[in-house]
Amino acid sequence: MLPLAIMHAAQATPTRGYSATKDQLQGRLRRIEGQVRGIERMVDEERYCIDVLTQIGAVQAALDKVALGLLDDHAHHCVIGAEDLTEREAKTDELMASVARLMRRG
Amino acid sequence: MLPLAIMHAAQATPTRGYSATKDQLQGRLRRIEGQVRGIERMVDEERYCIDVLTQIGAVQAALDKVALGLLDDHAHHCVIGAEDLTEREAKTDELMASVARLMRRG
Amino acid sequence: MLPLAIMHAAQATPTRGYSATKDQLQGRLRRIEGQVRGIERMVDEERYCIDVLTQIGAVQAALDKVALGLLDDHAHHCVIGAEDLTEREAKTDELMASVARLMRRG
Amino acid sequence: MLPLAIMHAAQATPTRGYSATKDQLQGRLRRIEGQVRGIERMVDEERYCIDVLTQIGAVQAALDKVALGLLDDHAHHCVIGAEDLTEREAKTDELMASVARLMRRG
Repeated sequence: MLPLAIMHAAQATPTRGYSATKDQLQGRLRRIEGQVRGIERMVDEERYCIDVLTQIGAVQAALDKVALGLLDDHAHHCVIGAEDLTEREAKTDELMASVARLMRRG
Repeated sequence: MLPLAIMHAAQATPTRGYSATKDQLQGRLRRIEGQVRGIERMVDEERYCIDVLTQIGAVQAALDKVALGLLDDHAHHCVIGAEDLTEREAKTDELMASVARLMRRG
Repeated sequence: MLPLAIMHAAQATPTRGYSATKDQLQGRLRRIEGQVRGIERMVDEERYCIDVLTQIGAVQAALDKVALGLLDDHAHHCVIGAEDLTEREAKTDELMASVARLMRRG
Repeated sequence: MLPLAIMHAAQATPTRGYSATKDQLQGRLRRIEGQVRGIERMVDEERYCIDVLTQIGAVQAALDKVALGLLDDHAHHCVIGAEDLTEREAKTDELMASVARLMRRG
């Protein structure tokens, strides 16, 4: 299960660092949720489909940013911070499998 | 502004068709909104980042499906149903610009 | 088989238009071929993998451009220029299936 | 500059490993080069644009595979094998920047 809290225990600055990142991440996800609700409203108001598509593209770009942030976090903390080489290899495999899934989009 | 309702006026089956599609679209967007909320909860519970990333990939795939559905709708109704050739050319340009934006994601 | 030459017969300016586009397309593809050969050389010279990856990204972007150009061509000529509505619907379906494949990359 | 040969010096099996990977990589790139030449021929023969697009998608999928292989190699050898933590952090940043570029395609 390896919670984010443990992953980040290896971080140099325990007072800030993760909690700030977590707040930022939550903020970004809440904004994305709001964007999706905005798209629902656009469809409800029967707005022009090209405008709806532009908003979908914006949500996808925002999700890409969140995904890249999480990958970066994972690479810096879980992979580099792993206890030994075997663990680090396993974490790297997991990271790359995730990159592959995201490139093909889910 | 060309609302979806007008776009779909040219459709063969006015009784169903668009309203069903609109309901489906709303349903899909509500599910996506729920998925994003689920990701917020995962972050809140400090779940493993690779699992969060897998869920982000699932949302991206769901958004791709919605986008492709809207593009298809636009191509079949707005483009094909456009009044004259000039209008059809303009709608096709808009469609292709949207495809280009979605390929690069927003 | 529907060769490009026929597709473009409906075009307004028969003297130029397609042949120029075809030349441009050939030129772009030859440049992409050259870029791929350049990547082979980089691997042969054991260049840094991040630099090789940057070049692969450049080839992907160039291929995206070619694909978008072909989609645009298809939308403007094959779809709009199709003889009747049934044909136009079929061509639009083909176009959208191609967009879906390219979004997921092959 | 850090050539691939040095990166792979840390590998467990120096006799094989990299050289096999390099050969495989060269083989894949040569096949991709051949695929691009095939697309040029298709355009030359004025083949149907949807078929050309399908081939472009296939080349992009093949390039994605090569890119993921190189990223994996970089993550396992350059990042994990880096001498100290500072170096490992720098290599991880480089890796993630490359992932970000590839996600947005060049």
